[in-house]
Formats: sequence, C-alpha cells, structure tokens
Amino acid sequence: MSDKIAVVPGSFDPITNGHLDIIKRAADVFDTVYVAVLNNSSKNPLFTVEERMELIAKVTTNFSNIRIESSSGLLIDYAQQKKAQAIVRGLRAVSDFEYEMQITSMNRVLDENIETFFIMTKNQYSFLSSSIVKEVAKYGGNVSELVPPIVAGALKEKFNG
Amino acid sequence: MSDKIAVVPGSFDPITNGHLDIIKRAADVFDTVYVAVLNNSSKNPLFTVEERMELIAKVTTNFSNIRIESSSGLLIDYAQQKKAQAIVRGLRAVSDFEYEMQITSMNRVLDENIETFFIMTKNQYSFLSSSIVKEVAKYGGNVSELVPPIVAGALKEKFNG
Amino acid sequence: MSDKIAVVPGSFDPITNGHLDIIKRAADVFDTVYVAVLNNSSKNPLFTVEERMELIAKVTTNFSNIRIESSSGLLIDYAQQKKAQAIVRGLRAVSDFEYEMQITSMNRVLDENIETFFIMTKNQYSFLSSSIVKEVAKYGGNVSELVPPIVAGALKEKFNG
Amino acid sequence: MSDKIAVVPGSFDPITNGHLDIIKRAADVFDTVYVAVLNNSSKNPLFTVEERMELIAKVTTNFSNIRIESSSGLLIDYAQQKKAQAIVRGLRAVSDFEYEMQITSMNRVLDENIETFFIMTKNQYSFLSSSIVKEVAKYGGNVSELVPPIVAGALKEKFNG
Amino acid sequence: MSDKIAVVPGSFDPITNGHLDIIKRAADVFDTVYVAVLNNSSKNPLFTVEERMELIAKVTTNFSNIRIESSSGLLIDYAQQKKAQAIVRGLRAVSDFEYEMQITSMNRVLDENIETFFIMTKNQYSFLSSSIVKEVAKYGGNVSELVPPIVAGALKEKFNG
Amino acid sequence: MSDKIAVVPGSFDPITNGHLDIIKRAADVFDTVYVAVLNNSSKNPLFTVEERMELIAKVTTNFSNIRIESSSGLLIDYAQQKKAQAIVRGLRAVSDFEYEMQITSMNRVLDENIETFFIMTKNQYSFLSSSIVKEVAKYGGNVSELVPPIVAGALKEKFNG
Repeated sequence: MSDKIAVVPGSFDPITNGHLDIIKRAADVFDTVYVAVLNNSSKNPLFTVEERMELIAKVTTNFSNIRIESSSGLLIDYAQQKKAQAIVRGLRAVSDFEYEMQITSMNRVLDENIETFFIMTKNQYSFLSSSIVKEVAKYGGNVSELVPPIVAGALKEKFNG
Repeated sequence: MSDKIAVVPGSFDPITNGHLDIIKRAADVFDTVYVAVLNNSSKNPLFTVEERMELIAKVTTNFSNIRIESSSGLLIDYAQQKKAQAIVRGLRAVSDFEYEMQITSMNRVLDENIETFFIMTKNQYSFLSSSIVKEVAKYGGNVSELVPPIVAGALKEKFNG
Repeated sequence: MSDKIAVVPGSFDPITNGHLDIIKRAADVFDTVYVAVLNNSSKNPLFTVEERMELIAKVTTNFSNIRIESSSGLLIDYAQQKKAQAIVRGLRAVSDFEYEMQITSMNRVLDENIETFFIMTKNQYSFLSSSIVKEVAKYGGNVSELVPPIVAGALKEKFNG
Repeated sequence: MSDKIAVVPGSFDPITNGHLDIIKRAADVFDTVYVAVLNNSSKNPLFTVEERMELIAKVTTNFSNIRIESSSGLLIDYAQQKKAQAIVRGLRAVSDFEYEMQITSMNRVLDENIETFFIMTKNQYSFLSSSIVKEVAKYGGNVSELVPPIVAGALKEKFNG
Repeated sequence: MSDKIAVVPGSFDPITNGHLDIIKRAADVFDTVYVAVLNNSSKNPLFTVEERMELIAKVTTNFSNIRIESSSGLLIDYAQQKKAQAIVRGLRAVSDFEYEMQITSMNRVLDENIETFFIMTKNQYSFLSSSIVKEVAKYGGNVSELVPPIVAGALKEKFNG
Repeated sequence: MSDKIAVVPGSFDPITNGHLDIIKRAADVFDTVYVAVLNNSSKNPLFTVEERMELIAKVTTNFSNIRIESSSGLLIDYAQQKKAQAIVRGLRAVSDFEYEMQITSMNRVLDENIETFFIMTKNQYSFLSSSIVKEVAKYGGNVSELVPPIVAGALKEKFNG
C-alpha cells in the first residue's frame, strides 16, 4: 500500500489548542501530514509566517510524521506538489461549515482526485478561534486553557513587549 | 436576597428598537441593568461613544434601574467590577447565535461565575441591525419604524448635517 | 427587592449532565428555580414522570433553592401559577435554537411578561441529548461521562432488568 | 393583465454561472427583468460598473426581455422607479439566507408592495461566489466551469494584463 | 403576455396567519394562484382535506384570483396540469430552508421548467406553524393573534366539541 | 505502514448516487472500506437489510477494496472489531451537520481513537436523500438521475409489484 499523505492548511495566527487537536488527529490516521501555513491572507497577521511555523514546530515535536511548511498561491497546487490524497480541515460551527463547503467545492473543480476530509474539533474547543484568543490576550486576559504554554508566552510578548 | 445585577453590552451605533426591547426586558427581571457601550471596536463608528450613551439615556428615561456607561477592555472585567451575576444579550439569527456562543464560551473560561443569558428580540425586530439602519438612513430612507424618533433625528442630522 | 423565580422545563427522560449544568446555572442566579418535568409529551418515555422527578431530586440535593414538580398543559400557565419572571432553557445547536424560538415566540403571545432566558450548556455537553444517551445505554455502551452515576445505574436497570 | 416586472440586483463583480442561472430563471417567468448592477458597495471592486454591465450584456444576448442598468442609492427606490412588482434574489447557503432576510425585511418596511422572491441556484453552483472565482483566477486557477468563457477571458486579462 | 400562474402547496392543517400572508403575496404578483391542499401526508391530520379547503376558502374570499383544490400524488404533476410557471413557498427558519431546498431540487429533476419561488413570511409570523397552534389550542390557550377568527373557532370546536 | 481501514455506515434504504459518491471517495483514500448497513433503525424500512446489501454490492463491483456487511448494536463496537482507524460520513446540509456532530461526539466518548471524517457529497447530490427518492418513486416519478439504474428498477418493483 502506498503512503497516505494529508495537508492541514490554515493561517495559524497563532496555533490554538483546537488547531493542535486537528493536526494530531490527522497525524494519527495519515502516514505523513503537511501543516501548510497560508501566506496569502489579506488580513494583517499578528505573527509572521516564520513565527507561526516555529510555534507549530515547537508544539508538535512529539510527532515524527508532521512537516511544517508555508504555502502561498492555490492550496490545491500545494497539495498536488506534496502528492497528498487528502486535505484535512477542522469543523466547528455552521458558518465554518458553509465557507468550507465553498472552498471544497472549488478545490474539486480544480482537482477531483484530492479529497477534503473534515474532522470535528474536541467539544471543549468548539467555539475557539485565533482571533478571539488574540482579542483576549490583547487586554491581558488569561488564555492558558486555549493555547499551548509557548503560544501564551508569545502572545504576552507581542502585546507587552 | 441580594440584588440581581446584569450587564447589557453592545456597540449601539446607534441604538435601535431591537436593542431597546432587549434592555427593557432585562430591566424587567434584574434589579439593576448596566448598559455598557463598547469602546474597543475596530470599526469606524458613526456616533461617538458619548453620543451613543446620550441617545440611550434619552430613550430609557422611564426606567430607574438602568445605568449607562462606556467600557473598553475585556467585558468580563467590566462585569466583575459591577458585581454582575449576568450578561444579557439579544439573539436574532443563526450567525448571531454562533458568534455569541464563541464570546460566551470565552467569557466562561475567564470567569465561570458570570452567566450569559440570551433573550430573543421581538419578532418584528428579528432582522434589524444598526448597520442596516445606517445604510438606509444614508440614502434618505425612512427608518422611523426601526429606531426611536430621537435616533431617527440624530441619523438625519449626521447624514445631512 | 422581590424574589426572582425561574422555571426550567424539560422532558428529562432521563436528566443528563447537560441538563444538570443548566439547572445549576439557573439556581446560581435566581432565588428559586422550579424544575418542571413535562408530562404532555406524545413520545413514549423510558422513565415515568415520577422516576424522572426522583432522579432529578437525587442529583440536586446540594441546592436548597430548587423545587421539582411535574407539569401538564401549557408551560406558560404553569409559570404564571409559580409567579415566575422567567423561563430558563439550555441552548445547544442551531436546530434547538429554532425550535426554542418558536416556543418562546408563542409563549410571548400568551404572556408578554414572562421572559425566556437561554443559557449555553458547557462546551463538553454541546452535543448531548437524552435520546442519544438512551440509544447508547440500550446497547450496553458506557454513559458514565454523560449522566450522573445514579442515572447511569437507573439506565442499566431499565435495559437489563 | 399587466406586465410582470422584476429586478435582479447584485454586485456581479464579475457575473458567474450561478448569477446567470438566476437571471435566466427570472426571465423565464417575468415579462421584463432589470439586472441592476449595484454601485454603492464599499468594497474595492475588480471590474468597473461599466465593465460588469458589459459582461452581463454579452452573456444574456439571447434574452430579449432583460435590461441591464446600474443603480446607486436604495434598491427599493430603483424598483419603484421601474414599476417592478418583484425583486428576485438567488439563494445559496444559510448565511446568504439570513442576510437576505435582513434586506428583505428592511425593504418591506420601505415598501410593502414590492415582493422579494428567492430562487435556488442550480445545485452545481450552490457554493459559487464571485469572490472565490476571483481568488482562484488571481493564482492562475482554471475557472472555466464557473463563469462564462467571456468572463474567464476578462479575468485572465485583469490578472495578467 | 401570457397569464402567470402559481401553485401554493401545503398541508394547511389548519391555515395560519403566516400561510395567509404568503397566499396573499403570491396573489398580488401572479394572475392566478392555486392553493393546493396536500393529501398525501402520512401524519394524522386534525382537519380533513375538505375542512381545510373550506377554511382557506372562507379567509380568502376577497381575492378573485385564488383557486383552492386538493392534490395527492406528486406536486410537480399537479403544477404541470395547472400550466403553472411557478410554485410559491413561504420561508421561515433555517430548517425550513433546507427541507425546501431538498424538495425544490427534486422538483427540478422532475421538471426543469417550473420554478420555485420562496417568499419570506411577515416578521411577526416567522416562528409560527400549524403544529404549535394546535398544541396551544389543545390546552385552551388563546390563538387569536395567530390564525383568522374563523380558524380559531374551528380549533375550539375540534378540541371542546 | 499499516493498512488504513474505514467504515462507511448508513441505512442505505436504498443506496442513492449520493451514498455511492461517498463510498467511492472513501475507497479512493483508504485501503479497505467496510460499508455497514445499519440494522437497528426504528423506522419501517422499504428494503430488507439483505436487499440493501445486495443493491450496494451490485453497484460497487468495480471496487475491490469494498466489503459490505450489516451491523446492529453500537457502530463503535463494529468499527473496533474491524480495526478501523476511521468512520467516514457524507455531509450535506446544516441539519445533517448537527446530528452528525452529536453522533461523533458520542462515539469519541466511547472510543477516542477512532476518528470520524466527513466528506462533502458532490454538489449535484447536496439535497438528495433516500426518503425523498422513495417519496417520488412511490408516485411514479422518474428517479433515474438520482439512483443507479438497478436501484431504480428495484424501486419500481417494490411500488408496482
């Protein structure tokens, strides 16, 4: 049997416990998982792509089958280049669901052979997002239950530094 | 029995009949209601925080248990400072619902003891928002069924003044 | 200030950790909470109304301000009779949300003065329901994370006894 | 019987196969259909209003009962001026649905006599939007299944020209 | 121009103010409106098809372009037989929306030429349904704001007679 | 690398083109796919479990890595017994999404190590379900675009035979 390869794309600005949960679940099923930090967002990021990649690397050191890369351009081009059979995405709420449907539908038009799999996040992270974490951290709120310790530290530094 | 205190937060830019309905319903159940005009929004407001507070004050004069204040920073810090047992929010549509779930979930992480209560707006205001009111007022449309008269006047002044 | 009284209605067939969470949250804010076990459901219940009331009583013994009763007929009549200012309901998912909107809207037509407050369940119970618990218990699955121990015992007895 | 006149409003930046499907369906039922290219959007459009109107004109030449115009200001004022009985909108997903409800509700406040009809897009275009088409075209992805050939050409020119 | 004909299908068990609102809106735009009382429902109806037709007839006497009929079998066969260009359906909530999408999608497979138009109910009827009306009437609740007087009378008779 | 095994559960009463699309997509990524025909439904099925399995077998003959079995009891027990790493489910609409979330959440409580992957059905089957197919077939409607020919034949036989 051939290797099963998946891409887990995202902004990861910064990685939360919810993202980490999805990445680990993908790494449990697939032989190799590429975490693709998307570089083409129009929004003003808090962390640079390099900082985001470094934070992901630090919180996934226990997993030998995870590769962290950045990607600009079309996700489907990236997935083809990695010979991935699948894109894995976390699903939280209804609005996520619809946006993801749009993206997935478009990706199928571009390449019918790369499947998108959705995984449900752990219940306790159902309503978690990078933006809400940044909003709270900005006002000095405690985010230690929502992001790995190293990310909590990086957020503190960004806002107080 | 101790006093029951609630905070009703919002941008109120400007207050609509829907907001007013929620504030009044909260004031019917709680002993004291703090209307917190949020100051930390990144969007360009039409009215200043002071103007927004003044409009709310003018349309709630019949209620003796309503206090109007502004709040910047984390809502949960404000609620703690007011010794509120509850945050009261209006619920309209599905997208509201999900965003509110995110905020509520985060607020619980920050303080488990302050409960968020959602109240349904009156059916006739189910699809009403400050932004749609501003959009219509900007083009000279009649918004007198959707906002209190004094707010309709203030909108007219902003756009024609 | 007058006493604040709330009604928490439901089928509770049987009570889950999600229900218990909502009841306790209501009891933290209101002076008296009536848990109303609804008797007018057309569905075939697993537990009798008396069994359901007894299970609720056993898992809420630490709360002195909770009363457990059964109710048939219109909920709003029951709430009026208890002089309740509020009905408290748990909110889980979008489909809940819409059905609850229907009921609330109808209850307002019947009595404008009794407010319905929605509380979000704890994230870990967001997708929990009595029916899914019964389905799992029926096939011998382990439901001990989802219902209080005494309810888990009662379920085992129903299905094996 | 009097003529049945409908307005199909939108940004059409640019027109997709989904938009075209809705316009044609409206033209099959109504005697005259005004396609109103909205000019009051705050977003940075890719195509000018004139370019958008020209693209729509080119892909609807087979229909003799379609008029293409631009509109700034309130849609309801435009519809009144055209003596339209109806506004026709395409419906895709849940989030569309709610936003459309807001707009429709507001339009009814402004003029109770102009009805809004929603039409479902063809299944294959359920998740299609101008923005996702532009995103893909920008990175050189193939959009020929999603927009008419002439629009695909115009997109290529915009991004490579 | 040819006549514009629409079918408004439903169970109408019994007709509510929400249904009536939709039927009237359809009758304002189309030349002839067929109200089709569906007979093939598996649910136990409260009113017979004849009683339902009679109630609809009594509350629509002011409209000369409304015909009331019963229909069993496939709706699309009925619509074809009436030479209708359109089926008109009321839209309330998200769950409605999805079910309606299923039906519409199927009807298009069966006949691409008959269009389904969705109309939003008046805000005050957004959460109204025949079943909730029946539930309330059964327990003696007052439904006079929700159904025409003659329907309120018929409900009283059914439950007390 | 070890074999990747998935279970695709369902009632399949009968299998539609939408189901078939999901099964094939799963079979493209996983080494072995078990299609589990669920036997514990309380609803009155049209086809027996054996008939449903036979129809699935006939329309998947081109795939060598698909096994068709029936399953009663808890799905998670079945998945464990098959040493599956994953359960694969098709996602259509919002209501699906929420019910699936409930099931997935429960399955995680029962076994954290078996992941549920959701796949989006092909757009053209977004609104397709076995029940709507049966409803149409019952009244002699043409379902040949919605189910494989052999299933269309079996439906005709059931309803006319």
